[in-house]
Amino acid sequence: MAHTIWRPAHPVYIADAATVVGHEEHAGPLGAFFDLHDPKKDDFGMDTWEKAESEMQRLAVNTLLGRASLNAADIRAIFAGDLLNQCTGSGYGLLSFDAPFFGLYGACSTAAEGLALAAQLCGAYGGPYVTVSSSHFCSAERQFRYPMEYGGQRPPTAQWTVTGAAAFLVTDRTESPAPRIAEILPGITVDRGITDANNMGAAMAPAALDTLLRYFRESGRKPDSFDMILTGDLGAEGSAILRDFAAAAGCDISGVQQDCGMLIYDAQTSDKHSGGSGCGCSGVTLGGFILDRMRRGVISDILFIGTGALLSPMSVQQGQSIPGIGHLLRITTREDTAQ
Amino acid sequence: MAHTIWRPAHPVYIADAATVVGHEEHAGPLGAFFDLHDPKKDDFGMDTWEKAESEMQRLAVNTLLGRASLNAADIRAIFAGDLLNQCTGSGYGLLSFDAPFFGLYGACSTAAEGLALAAQLCGAYGGPYVTVSSSHFCSAERQFRYPMEYGGQRPPTAQWTVTGAAAFLVTDRTESPAPRIAEILPGITVDRGITDANNMGAAMAPAALDTLLRYFRESGRKPDSFDMILTGDLGAEGSAILRDFAAAAGCDISGVQQDCGMLIYDAQTSDKHSGGSGCGCSGVTLGGFILDRMRRGVISDILFIGTGALLSPMSVQQGQSIPGIGHLLRITTREDTAQ
Repeated sequence: MAHTIWRPAHPVYIADAATVVGHEEHAGPLGAFFDLHDPKKDDFGMDTWEKAESEMQRLAVNTLLGRASLNAADIRAIFAGDLLNQCTGSGYGLLSFDAPFFGLYGACSTAAEGLALAAQLCGAYGGPYVTVSSSHFCSAERQFRYPMEYGGQRPPTAQWTVTGAAAFLVTDRTESPAPRIAEILPGITVDRGITDANNMGAAMAPAALDTLLRYFRESGRKPDSFDMILTGDLGAEGSAILRDFAAAAGCDISGVQQDCGMLIYDAQTSDKHSGGSGCGCSGVTLGGFILDRMRRGVISDILFIGTGALLSPMSVQQGQSIPGIGHLLRITTREDTAQ
Repeated sequence: MAHTIWRPAHPVYIADAATVVGHEEHAGPLGAFFDLHDPKKDDFGMDTWEKAESEMQRLAVNTLLGRASLNAADIRAIFAGDLLNQCTGSGYGLLSFDAPFFGLYGACSTAAEGLALAAQLCGAYGGPYVTVSSSHFCSAERQFRYPMEYGGQRPPTAQWTVTGAAAFLVTDRTESPAPRIAEILPGITVDRGITDANNMGAAMAPAALDTLLRYFRESGRKPDSFDMILTGDLGAEGSAILRDFAAAAGCDISGVQQDCGMLIYDAQTSDKHSGGSGCGCSGVTLGGFILDRMRRGVISDILFIGTGALLSPMSVQQGQSIPGIGHLLRITTREDTAQ
């Protein structure tokens, strides 16, 4: 059975993260945890939304490298992805960095996908690696749904694409204490027949469940051994489905499950329906808020499950249902974890 | 300097490859080397071109696993990518395989990108891994250019998207002799200002050159130590540019350079202009034709440079130039190669 938990051969750290967000994310409950934000228009000084998204990636990586006093030439590779057609947010955004480039497409799971691959390579061959992912509400709206000017209405299950980019520095050594990526369980695509593109949470929840149950089965651990089980962007709808299905499978996660899409906006005041989503959502929440809490010792051992919906507008138009995927990382500051 | 040649920690083999092509690729000079083909319509029994492309990926992986007597459960992970928006060729095509899934976007360099990541992981942690990439002329035409029914004209520099999918089995052990992936040099994105989306060869050639010169500089080897320097899909135009620029840099590759996009179609009779391209082009040419020649001892040591153009229709419409990338693999059956 080859589908085992992956463990980096040597300790691997998330040495730092840099986050860039839009004005609404900055105005939300996690606003103080982000490094940079656009104060108003979310165009980051660019003349198209797509270029604005690329600029967010550039800013995130630039901030990360600057703070670590690293040049692009010091980086073994950058893993990058976004939601735009042909991943141009990454392709153009990272052009100015003279470093090996691996483009990823994992939809909203991209932050976790990049961290998984970088951690596993870093544990065997040394680092550092950079991972980065992004999404932008305006570039996503016009690509996946309607032009911004149309003002389309949204059902309560719909999620709101986070305007944000997060870059992570994955290293095999660290000068100050940093969380480790101790375990990785790559996701398997799961399609339970959901065809409503305004209900991504329902499409992704079965994939998150599949990964989570596989993890607990193989590791022998229980949900309450973790301070948090952090899903990427299931939103309110998908989180409820995941909790219910997990409970039905004899695995109660209701006391520890949190969702990046629900943490990033204020549910009462922000009119974001089921919560945030997008490649930037889990990236900035993990990189800004969660890592800060880990560094300050508030939480010390979490499961992070980056969730993605592998649809396209055309696959939906052609009547296909929506496959989901969930890549799991165990991120910990505990010393006692077996490597 | 972190941008060194990567070498898998332990020997890594391309144990097998499976290829699926359309009827024009089957009618071309390499036709006899492909495993499966659609005899006429290239729809592979599906009702849309996008589903046909997914079906090619499924057929390629299924053929590969069947011949190796492997189940999906035996595979550590599948690395997969294609040219379709949100990579739905892979997302939907591989749904039936119950194996961990990493989606890639490297445009036409995806076959090389997947092999690079799988080889490096396999060399450290063991295998097997599967990599797969695909493109389909009809799904690409309507997405990147015009609807099929429009009959748009093409300039002589234009390339023809190969209808094909190739799957590779990357292992840490092999029962019969198989080529090894001995060295990897990941590509760095290079943008030299080409804005003509009908001249991808010119956009990708500088990236291939950058990788190639870095490889020779670091390895100390010369072009004539290899039986072949195989570029992915520069076509006639891009190949000429690469040879000229390499010669100007003091590196004469004219005696050994071949291009998958020029091998796959008959230049005299097939009306394919500058040659083939697409994620399937280098995959099926390497997996079908080149690996056969290596197994039969006709060639024994090659450099394979998967080339990709990281544009989208929208980036072109917004006036941005076209970045290229080239990932290099040294594939060899020679025993004397340092690991």
